[in-house]
Amino acid sequence: MTIAQPYLLFLADAPHAKTAFGVRHWRPDACAAQFRYPGSTLDLGLPEMTPDQAAAAGVKTLLIGAAPAGGMLPDRWVGDLVAAIRAGMDIASGLHARLTDVPELVAAAKAAGRRLHDVRHPTENFTIGGFERRPGKRLLTVGADCAVGKMYTALAIERELRARGVAADFRATGQTGILIVGSGVSVDAVISDFVAAAAAALSPAAADDHWDVVEGQGSLFHPAYAGVTLGLLHGSQPDAMVLCADPSRTALGDFDAYPQPDLAECIALYTDCARLTNPDARVVGISLNSSSFGEGEAAALIARTEDRLGLPCVDPVRTGVAAIVDRLGVKGR
Amino acid sequence: MTIAQPYLLFLADAPHAKTAFGVRHWRPDACAAQFRYPGSTLDLGLPEMTPDQAAAAGVKTLLIGAAPAGGMLPDRWVGDLVAAIRAGMDIASGLHARLTDVPELVAAAKAAGRRLHDVRHPTENFTIGGFERRPGKRLLTVGADCAVGKMYTALAIERELRARGVAADFRATGQTGILIVGSGVSVDAVISDFVAAAAAALSPAAADDHWDVVEGQGSLFHPAYAGVTLGLLHGSQPDAMVLCADPSRTALGDFDAYPQPDLAECIALYTDCARLTNPDARVVGISLNSSSFGEGEAAALIARTEDRLGLPCVDPVRTGVAAIVDRLGVKGR
Repeated sequence: MTIAQPYLLFLADAPHAKTAFGVRHWRPDACAAQFRYPGSTLDLGLPEMTPDQAAAAGVKTLLIGAAPAGGMLPDRWVGDLVAAIRAGMDIASGLHARLTDVPELVAAAKAAGRRLHDVRHPTENFTIGGFERRPGKRLLTVGADCAVGKMYTALAIERELRARGVAADFRATGQTGILIVGSGVSVDAVISDFVAAAAAALSPAAADDHWDVVEGQGSLFHPAYAGVTLGLLHGSQPDAMVLCADPSRTALGDFDAYPQPDLAECIALYTDCARLTNPDARVVGISLNSSSFGEGEAAALIARTEDRLGLPCVDPVRTGVAAIVDRLGVKGR
Repeated sequence: MTIAQPYLLFLADAPHAKTAFGVRHWRPDACAAQFRYPGSTLDLGLPEMTPDQAAAAGVKTLLIGAAPAGGMLPDRWVGDLVAAIRAGMDIASGLHARLTDVPELVAAAKAAGRRLHDVRHPTENFTIGGFERRPGKRLLTVGADCAVGKMYTALAIERELRARGVAADFRATGQTGILIVGSGVSVDAVISDFVAAAAAALSPAAADDHWDVVEGQGSLFHPAYAGVTLGLLHGSQPDAMVLCADPSRTALGDFDAYPQPDLAECIALYTDCARLTNPDARVVGISLNSSSFGEGEAAALIARTEDRLGLPCVDPVRTGVAAIVDRLGVKGR
């Protein structure tokens, strides 16, 4: 799916807006305006516009960038969404609840010829291809666990590659990433048979010096989601993998009974599995989310990890990702 | 889903009926009758009945046991399916095309209060559990490749366990297996996020000496389907795995460019991955489909494999599976 930009970021009366802040951080040029309800405590620092004003200013899509409790779409939002559609905008949502389940939105979109993007619910069909090696280069962020910074790391690497003049595209595999860049596939919502095919379609054949930077999902060490991770790994056929971890955790985030895997064990299993579809696959660096540690502790942890594993180690927020990108052998402008 | 038995096996005018022959072989007591069109070249050796006669004889479900070319439901079959519904039977199908997409069938089923089972298209919702070890014993057949005898081997092991007086249940994960035993989940058609949860639901907590014999899917060495395989492996948390392979193949069945993996490599990766959810998991035997070899060649191959890997090796058709079941440490009646 491709979502037209720029966006009106719809914050309404929601208490949090992780997605909106992510879009604002990674794609500032895609963010034209914000629309808040009176009393909102959120602020993206964007011009305030109503749907009518935004449409008149050339905004293409109202993005629901805030998550109400429970993931349901509040009835009180529907009127403004209908107004946005009538003004000529598409609507994009990363909520579990589907826009297409709201009859008023479906009717308005049909009448106005606009689109409703439920990015958590892929509608494409994917064809199983031959799984040959494709030209172009691919990097995949992989995790010791879920929610350890795989999207953030991938976006930071895309930014660093582009800053060096290298052609690079972040490939989104989850709802936040899709809304940030305006395209992608929620792979965990794809029928299991087609996950690898969807991943292959997401990073198609490209020029030899082009990098697709694919957002990883889940973890091979996560008992519920490892299958999604493996399908994404095989379909992406990465040349390079960056292993992401949260060193403050001792157990998996979702399951107390499961320990955090050792990073060396992660490197071994990811490499072993990735080589099925790309014999050259290797882990090129480690990305730690060290936000629970103080500055000194974090620096020591990063140095120790680098030393123990013999790979560049970064915290993308604290150190940037240049040390990892140095290892990709890219020649910039 | 649970499908009421016994069945009227609907062969119609189809050229092949792999599913019907599988049901006949593994669940003869579930097969009450067959219904063929004039000129049919198939014969299951069952009494011939029309839908009306079958319903009068107490048959619960008409099973579409034959696959027409392309997997579509031929229009010329619809009248007889409607007649079966009106006579009081449910319909079960393993075709890609959905019964629920045929308005005449939906209307007839609604009017008669009967059910349409599209076993390739799961309708259940699965909840991610805690992935704790569950009581009871589980065996999973795993593959070096797709289509190497995982369902056949699992059914043969269930039969052998039951013959020894051990409580055992085959757990179906694909459409043919589901139609054979009347329940199960087509795991490759489940949303990828829920594959492990579906597998866990399929082999729930049971008595300590009960064996669930779970039908494997795909292969960890198959670039398109390994994710399905891994989710099924983690959710099933097998105590025992039986590795199935076709020794006549040099490449994967689906992909010429991918070699058949070495069996020792398969044992290592399956064991490594399975231990995430069951630290006691081990491969207990090898099941070869040696049908392309002569009797003497096959015997030599089986002996050589046994010798090289230090595990019992069988061809379930030629030798039975007793040598593997001997290794499960079961105490029969």
